[in-house]
Amino acid sequence: MSTNTVREAVHAYFMQRAIELARRGWYTTRPNPRVGCVIVRGETVIGEGWHERAGENHAEKAALADVERRGESARGTTAYVTLEPCSHTGRTAPCVDALIDAGVARVVVGATDPNPQVNGRGIARLREAGIEVIADVVADRCRALNPGFEKRMRAKRPRVRVKLAMTLDGRTAAADGTSQWITGEVARDDVHRLRAESGAVMVGRGTLKADDPSLNVRLKGDWPQPMPVVLDTHVAITPDARVFETSPRVLIYCASTEGARIAALEQAGADIVMVGLSDDRLDLRAVLADLGKREINDVLVESGPQLAGALADAGLVDEYVIYMAAKLLGDAGRGLLHMPQIATLADAPQLVIDSVEPVGRDWRITARPAVIEED
Amino acid sequence: MSTNTVREAVHAYFMQRAIELARRGWYTTRPNPRVGCVIVRGETVIGEGWHERAGENHAEKAALADVERRGESARGTTAYVTLEPCSHTGRTAPCVDALIDAGVARVVVGATDPNPQVNGRGIARLREAGIEVIADVVADRCRALNPGFEKRMRAKRPRVRVKLAMTLDGRTAAADGTSQWITGEVARDDVHRLRAESGAVMVGRGTLKADDPSLNVRLKGDWPQPMPVVLDTHVAITPDARVFETSPRVLIYCASTEGARIAALEQAGADIVMVGLSDDRLDLRAVLADLGKREINDVLVESGPQLAGALADAGLVDEYVIYMAAKLLGDAGRGLLHMPQIATLADAPQLVIDSVEPVGRDWRITARPAVIEED
Repeated sequence: MSTNTVREAVHAYFMQRAIELARRGWYTTRPNPRVGCVIVRGETVIGEGWHERAGENHAEKAALADVERRGESARGTTAYVTLEPCSHTGRTAPCVDALIDAGVARVVVGATDPNPQVNGRGIARLREAGIEVIADVVADRCRALNPGFEKRMRAKRPRVRVKLAMTLDGRTAAADGTSQWITGEVARDDVHRLRAESGAVMVGRGTLKADDPSLNVRLKGDWPQPMPVVLDTHVAITPDARVFETSPRVLIYCASTEGARIAALEQAGADIVMVGLSDDRLDLRAVLADLGKREINDVLVESGPQLAGALADAGLVDEYVIYMAAKLLGDAGRGLLHMPQIATLADAPQLVIDSVEPVGRDWRITARPAVIEED
Repeated sequence: MSTNTVREAVHAYFMQRAIELARRGWYTTRPNPRVGCVIVRGETVIGEGWHERAGENHAEKAALADVERRGESARGTTAYVTLEPCSHTGRTAPCVDALIDAGVARVVVGATDPNPQVNGRGIARLREAGIEVIADVVADRCRALNPGFEKRMRAKRPRVRVKLAMTLDGRTAAADGTSQWITGEVARDDVHRLRAESGAVMVGRGTLKADDPSLNVRLKGDWPQPMPVVLDTHVAITPDARVFETSPRVLIYCASTEGARIAALEQAGADIVMVGLSDDRLDLRAVLADLGKREINDVLVESGPQLAGALADAGLVDEYVIYMAAKLLGDAGRGLLHMPQIATLADAPQLVIDSVEPVGRDWRITARPAVIEED
């Protein structure tokens, strides 16, 4: 191997460790990104850190604190950070300053920050201070730590994941509407983990009425809860909906509050937001833009064919997570996506299937549109 | 390892070789089973053989001929055979006699023969002749060589495989009926291999009318062709159907030939068989029983939702081979299986998914009913 190849392999090795550290904040950092940091002297790790939750230390500062705790000094070391260090003052002072102050000689960066307030500036500030910066090391895997955060920074709206449970013949409910449970317990637990990693879980009025879902994470242990979001054009929801029992706050998007018992709903925890109509249904772009403003990185959509189909139709789905059960329901069963504008095979949207994996007795298919809108 | 374990490993090793040999006849032995044979002296293979096609040497005789060709003698050797040697005179003299005459000392058998004319008798005959017999060695894999033959011997009808091509949301055609092509070229070539390994390819009248399919194997090289089978209650098929161009003989099952131009069809190569009606459609059990009598081991069904659903409904499907494309067609698209008797989720038939594998840009799902009727 050439010297360059060796150096690249060393950088990848320590960055991989930083990625592992970042993953420790998988469920807790939102709305912040997941970030990990490793401080290395020679070939020895002398400090490790990661971001745990908003308001607490960023990964760089956590790693520098770890260096100090171990009785070491960061002077002249190399810092590996999965995401470009911040240069602006947010809830905490900029990490760039902390790295400069600690006398770090070199910073190896995984992904550059998609946040327009940070992008490139952190790296520029470090270089101005005479620190060597190597960027884009294992960048793809570093970016994969924060698909929702990246999406929100770039597109000003959350990443939208549509979760569906179907039979082998693509049916989400039998002819009589029964759908509980198509998939087994292992798959259903997996959905609770999807909820836990999402800032919001969204349903339409139809699902709310049919299933009266709780939408919370019901796994053993202490898990962060997503915000329930209901799309309910005329605010037909009532304060006895189960979602109010399980969540202190429920976000309701509507086009009209006429006749709705707003006071009772607000009393129950509802936060009611008016948006416009588009093609006779709530303007989904407006809803997502509002969720973006509320710093939601990831929305999990657990809806029926109407809302899921409308999102698919509008090109607003970033990922489908489809749980497929080894059952048949026949062609009278309910379909996955209502997409009436598809008339002929040439209209069929093309997807990319990223993975097909067994989950208990069922299979989980992860797919994404071949083309995703970002405007 | 104990002596027993070592002996078992040795037997499994040579049987695995016999299985590999048997696979060389994968496309050609029908209606006979695929069989391989290895003759071993000490730890050395001195002869190998397999069944190539009906009327030619069975595997045992081919292996004994190979021993002779190598200038060796089979006296005192061990013969490994994937399927119990035949003891009845069919197209050729019984293999049991050939093994006895050659002086083989021991016969290791994979699967016992599902053919009631053979089952256990071959082994009994060998033992009577003083030959040591060890049976059921790697039996599952040996049986997997001949799922269709096994099915026909046990149930007196062929194994039924239903091939379907669908989008990720379980649709086989768009709202306007367009379906060519949902899957890519690699998947379509895979279907041609399925055809090549099937004695018959079956369609209903609907598919014949909609697609006018050729139903033949169109792969490079020399491949055996399946017999096209059309279920056509009132013989609406005409001699200009494409299937008559590509096959010298077409099997047509009907309930009435009234008004049909029988002479012209027979001239075109049609073989017309009357069967009864059951629930207003052709009696599928009668059709399959007739195909069994015609020594068809495997039927590939390439139909629309009506015939596939009726077969599923009647519990007559042995395996589903579903090609899934990374596309969406929405809930106005055509479904996979018309099974109107499934009203509620509790009615949903349970399947077992045996494999999910990438095939080019598509995925192939192989599944079978959790319960398969054999009566």
